[in-house]
Amino acid sequence: MSMITVSWGDPMVRGRLAAIRQRAPFIYGVTNYVAATLSANVLLAIGAAPAIGTAPGWPGAFGRSAAAVWINTAALMSTSSHDIVHVASCAHEAGVPWVLDPVAFGAGSAEYDRIVMRLLDCAPAVIRGNASELMALAGADGGGRGVETAHGSHDAVRHIQTLSSESGAVVAVSGATDYIASGATIFAIKGGDVRLTRVTGAGCALGALIAAFLPVSDTAAEAACAAHATYAEAAGRVKTVGTGSFGVGLLDELSVLAGLQ
Amino acid sequence: MSMITVSWGDPMVRGRLAAIRQRAPFIYGVTNYVAATLSANVLLAIGAAPAIGTAPGWPGAFGRSAAAVWINTAALMSTSSHDIVHVASCAHEAGVPWVLDPVAFGAGSAEYDRIVMRLLDCAPAVIRGNASELMALAGADGGGRGVETAHGSHDAVRHIQTLSSESGAVVAVSGATDYIASGATIFAIKGGDVRLTRVTGAGCALGALIAAFLPVSDTAAEAACAAHATYAEAAGRVKTVGTGSFGVGLLDELSVLAGLQ
Amino acid sequence: MSMITVSWGDPMVRGRLAAIRQRAPFIYGVTNYVAATLSANVLLAIGAAPAIGTAPGWPGAFGRSAAAVWINTAALMSTSSHDIVHVASCAHEAGVPWVLDPVAFGAGSAEYDRIVMRLLDCAPAVIRGNASELMALAGADGGGRGVETAHGSHDAVRHIQTLSSESGAVVAVSGATDYIASGATIFAIKGGDVRLTRVTGAGCALGALIAAFLPVSDTAAEAACAAHATYAEAAGRVKTVGTGSFGVGLLDELSVLAGLQ
Repeated sequence: MSMITVSWGDPMVRGRLAAIRQRAPFIYGVTNYVAATLSANVLLAIGAAPAIGTAPGWPGAFGRSAAAVWINTAALMSTSSHDIVHVASCAHEAGVPWVLDPVAFGAGSAEYDRIVMRLLDCAPAVIRGNASELMALAGADGGGRGVETAHGSHDAVRHIQTLSSESGAVVAVSGATDYIASGATIFAIKGGDVRLTRVTGAGCALGALIAAFLPVSDTAAEAACAAHATYAEAAGRVKTVGTGSFGVGLLDELSVLAGLQ
Repeated sequence: MSMITVSWGDPMVRGRLAAIRQRAPFIYGVTNYVAATLSANVLLAIGAAPAIGTAPGWPGAFGRSAAAVWINTAALMSTSSHDIVHVASCAHEAGVPWVLDPVAFGAGSAEYDRIVMRLLDCAPAVIRGNASELMALAGADGGGRGVETAHGSHDAVRHIQTLSSESGAVVAVSGATDYIASGATIFAIKGGDVRLTRVTGAGCALGALIAAFLPVSDTAAEAACAAHATYAEAAGRVKTVGTGSFGVGLLDELSVLAGLQ
Repeated sequence: MSMITVSWGDPMVRGRLAAIRQRAPFIYGVTNYVAATLSANVLLAIGAAPAIGTAPGWPGAFGRSAAAVWINTAALMSTSSHDIVHVASCAHEAGVPWVLDPVAFGAGSAEYDRIVMRLLDCAPAVIRGNASELMALAGADGGGRGVETAHGSHDAVRHIQTLSSESGAVVAVSGATDYIASGATIFAIKGGDVRLTRVTGAGCALGALIAAFLPVSDTAAEAACAAHATYAEAAGRVKTVGTGSFGVGLLDELSVLAGLQ
């Protein structure tokens, strides 16, 4: 398997981040309330303009007018399946690229999983998640427990290649090393910090970050790679002690990378 | 146009903040889940006693018994329009002063905008928002994009005078300089920090803060001025680097100003 | 009244915390969106694996498969009473121990209070709250105002003994000193920091923490004592200034105590 390594050192990554700050793209998110605040703050830290939530009329208005959209299916804890599917449909029909984060897919609720599957019909540009979720979405046994993975990201590599080829989406799995499949091609992003797994919503916020890179990138693969590399660089720069300070430091370093501190 | 400058240096501002700490007023909020945590923490930092959300029976019970109420209409992402209007009606009928924050008004959803307009019938004491939202509410073209403004606060000055005169509410617009209209009279509050626009819910939390000042102030204009001046002072004192630390530091400085650190 | 003092110095407390890190129990929570993020972060800081929210099918699937559950009834602000009762029923039937946090019980909504009372039929292992809430649940006049207590924890001691004896649950009241009743036996946990009352959701997160200790403890009383002692120790170690930094420091110190910094 050939693998292409991507990192913050690549001029493409820095160029895309600079473009976000310059253009301040409007990024619309449908996500869960545990992760919503961090996701919005990650986008604000790099200069994007986020709006979150399905207040009356927002799914259609914002789903069509945003520069990109992200949908975190755990939003179903306080959003109807109708609203979530409506956002995806509006984005798809309007040609707005969007990111699917199938949180807890395969963790035990067939009802939930069916709603997630319906979203695949709306052609997400990128699908991101942990190994268990993406393995389950590719038809394998993911073994996920709640929102936690039972596998390392390396276990998921061939499954995300399958899922990418079948769905047409770029597929990104988070872990000690992040892997991104664009069809059979695999990109690898190293770095980051294990404390990313100890801050709730840190994975969800990465889905929002990918969405922010979509309107300033030439391809969905480039957007996913640039977002993961930026996130890993910011996480790796946090030198404080403790998981609380880590979450704060992650935002600080993102804003410093973007020149918005 | 005559303009009255207000700042933390005014004894009125410090006196009102001290009164909040002394009386610990019960402040009830209906807000969105992206901003709810920060709003509650801002109120706790200065010694108020917040409760948030429309659990069964709370709209009536808390809408009538609170010392003041704030309603952030983005709450509609997880609250019914019935519950929101019920809170406003109960507060209005009970003589409880309340703050309206019409988040994303005029940004594209006519259905959402109609619900916001219904709240104006319940006579908010203060309306606060960004320039685009308040210009749209005053009948002009605000040009807002999601929850972001397309105009500077100065562009909104004459519109908030109009809105204040027509609605009878004090109207406050946030920006590089904050302006507060009480009929034709304009108050200006300088200072703050541009990073306030890079922390999600920082504007929403200011709506909560204004509510906390209402029960300890002689007029709604005084409450709005004192809240904005306190917020700007706290923001201006934060000397850390990065948008994450800025959000934490804002709470720290508020609690220090209130003597509750 | 005989009282047994428990603190971080007890090997039992440290042993239980080490067991959480080792086993990473899956802890399922139904809670309100103001407190959800902090609760998840408290659990992640000590090595537990939390999932929060009632997305379709999650109440049954996670209520039965979790190692323990916590239910914070302020979840009713965005969760149906049916879903909340369903989680409690599934946990009860599956023998999964669970924690009840009756936020704002007795504060003025009879409709809300009736839903909370129905949950008592599902035999919570632990009930935790502030003095006003638990006094009201024991049939006394709690005098609570929103989510705030009108009494010190000491006032509640005989009431939590009554409530524990009648319900069969361990009952824990937070305050300057925390008291835990297991029938007539009372445990006392000193320490902590008054700033815990100035961070929204800090009490709610303690309910989540107790749930994490349940699957690694011999009794519910042991779990409640170990959770309170760990929380008080972490809070007491935070030496920063301001309520914002205190919330961040609380997570840092918890992760340091667990060896996960």
